[in-house]
Amino acid sequence: MKPDRSCANKSGQIHLLTTIDNTAEVSNEERNVMNRREFARTISAFSSVMASAGMAQAQTQAKPAEMNHPMPAKPEEIAMLIYPGMTALDLIGPQQVFGYLMGCNVHLVAKTAELVTSDTGVSIKPTKTFGECPNTLDILFVPGGGIGTIHLMKDAETLTFLAERAKNAKWVTSVCSGSLVLAAAGLLRGYKATSHWSVRDVLADFGSEPVSQRVVEDRNRITSGGITAGIDFGLRIAGRLRGQEYAQALELTLEYDPQPPFHTGTPETAPPNVLSQMKQMYAPLAASARAVAGQQSTQPVPRG
Amino acid sequence: MKPDRSCANKSGQIHLLTTIDNTAEVSNEERNVMNRREFARTISAFSSVMASAGMAQAQTQAKPAEMNHPMPAKPEEIAMLIYPGMTALDLIGPQQVFGYLMGCNVHLVAKTAELVTSDTGVSIKPTKTFGECPNTLDILFVPGGGIGTIHLMKDAETLTFLAERAKNAKWVTSVCSGSLVLAAAGLLRGYKATSHWSVRDVLADFGSEPVSQRVVEDRNRITSGGITAGIDFGLRIAGRLRGQEYAQALELTLEYDPQPPFHTGTPETAPPNVLSQMKQMYAPLAASARAVAGQQSTQPVPRG
Repeated sequence: MKPDRSCANKSGQIHLLTTIDNTAEVSNEERNVMNRREFARTISAFSSVMASAGMAQAQTQAKPAEMNHPMPAKPEEIAMLIYPGMTALDLIGPQQVFGYLMGCNVHLVAKTAELVTSDTGVSIKPTKTFGECPNTLDILFVPGGGIGTIHLMKDAETLTFLAERAKNAKWVTSVCSGSLVLAAAGLLRGYKATSHWSVRDVLADFGSEPVSQRVVEDRNRITSGGITAGIDFGLRIAGRLRGQEYAQALELTLEYDPQPPFHTGTPETAPPNVLSQMKQMYAPLAASARAVAGQQSTQPVPRG
Repeated sequence: MKPDRSCANKSGQIHLLTTIDNTAEVSNEERNVMNRREFARTISAFSSVMASAGMAQAQTQAKPAEMNHPMPAKPEEIAMLIYPGMTALDLIGPQQVFGYLMGCNVHLVAKTAELVTSDTGVSIKPTKTFGECPNTLDILFVPGGGIGTIHLMKDAETLTFLAERAKNAKWVTSVCSGSLVLAAAGLLRGYKATSHWSVRDVLADFGSEPVSQRVVEDRNRITSGGITAGIDFGLRIAGRLRGQEYAQALELTLEYDPQPPFHTGTPETAPPNVLSQMKQMYAPLAASARAVAGQQSTQPVPRG
């Protein structure tokens, strides 16, 4: 949930987060103008509160340079690929975080302007087509999925789009099996990376080095584990872009105090019978992904 | 991510989860037919594997009655309300879980068939209007949001819809400030409930008893805390509907091994300066929600 901007303005409350409800009539551009204005007020107020309380450095572990990170001179451009069969939670975890950042443009990018339906039947409207997506991106992001992701790994138009935009992107990123698509586009060769546990090893077939870690960073590639890892990923990025305090506030906004009911979220903690069944279930998907690598080894990888 | 059903069928792998990619051409009805068929195979195979290994009870803490929970005779009907300004992650956390359950129909229900835009600009297509929503529901669910949620708390058509469907619903549920909407519909009077930390106390203004807990159950009302609490909520429901092992497998599928980067996800763990700023930011929203309660006390609550 996010607070009401109009309410807040009326009462003169300080805003730490952007608070514009993005309900159609407010454009990204307008939002950024408003955000910049509010951000200046916020930082000023926030800084003075902290300074007067003498709390800033004592109560956070942020480096001083990261505190109250200033608004970028130019809004960051974040392109989140969406495609049929994607896992909606892979996308929405980080999208919710990016959407709460002030002063960035978050684009949901697809081949065409048509609705895109997730693996569980959520149909989402793209905000930009490949052709409309900015050329220079701060973040290029790919969510994972099941068979839809395997299809995408073989889709020349998508791989070319990713390879082209990755050339100038500050960060090239993924959640879950989205890293397989980056790999298929030749973007993880020679990089450490991660993926959903069930297909992580397949990254090696694409010349990447699989790492069992929730979020893996290697130079400007940031890949994340399965589905829910996108929330951790998004918050980390928020810390990079807006400083630790802003990201701490976002974590509080998301009430991110997770209590997994079963403690079976990794192969290491799942009961052997459950893990064994799930491995069997995922084996064909991993094999399909491997087959794409095999086919690619006899074909040139699109390089944009 | 979810595996490819066609791949899996080709190789004869056992399916624990439903594996149909819901990409437009497969209807809920068709999917359930397929799911039931697969489920029978799955449970049979799964049970025999476990029986032969003698592992079933030793390796899970499930009560025997909960193990390999059979397919319901009739698919469960799950209605998830969507509305402008909702927080997408409130919705998608549990939707991802419900979407991975076999043999239930998950409906995204809105006033009209028009696209609904979230607080961070994600436009989602409803699958059912109020009029098309089944009358008898297993789960009625409301996600939270900011100003959009406050608007909804005053929307007679929505409150009447919720009050009517709640009468026959097995569970009446929410994530985040969605509980304020249930409260405004008169559905939490005399019930313990929770909400986003910033507005939780407002529940008392509607005759509900606020509880500081990630998921709160009181009779057939199940309410959850802010935004990310929806994932915990969804997995608990999965355990109820399909048994503990199925839900454990889902938690593994979601790779739900969260690693919050800042450990500031609750008022209790957030640094005081961050909490203080966020409280200031949310105060107007809480005040707006309170005002709705004040207005209601002079008007009859719609009771369907």
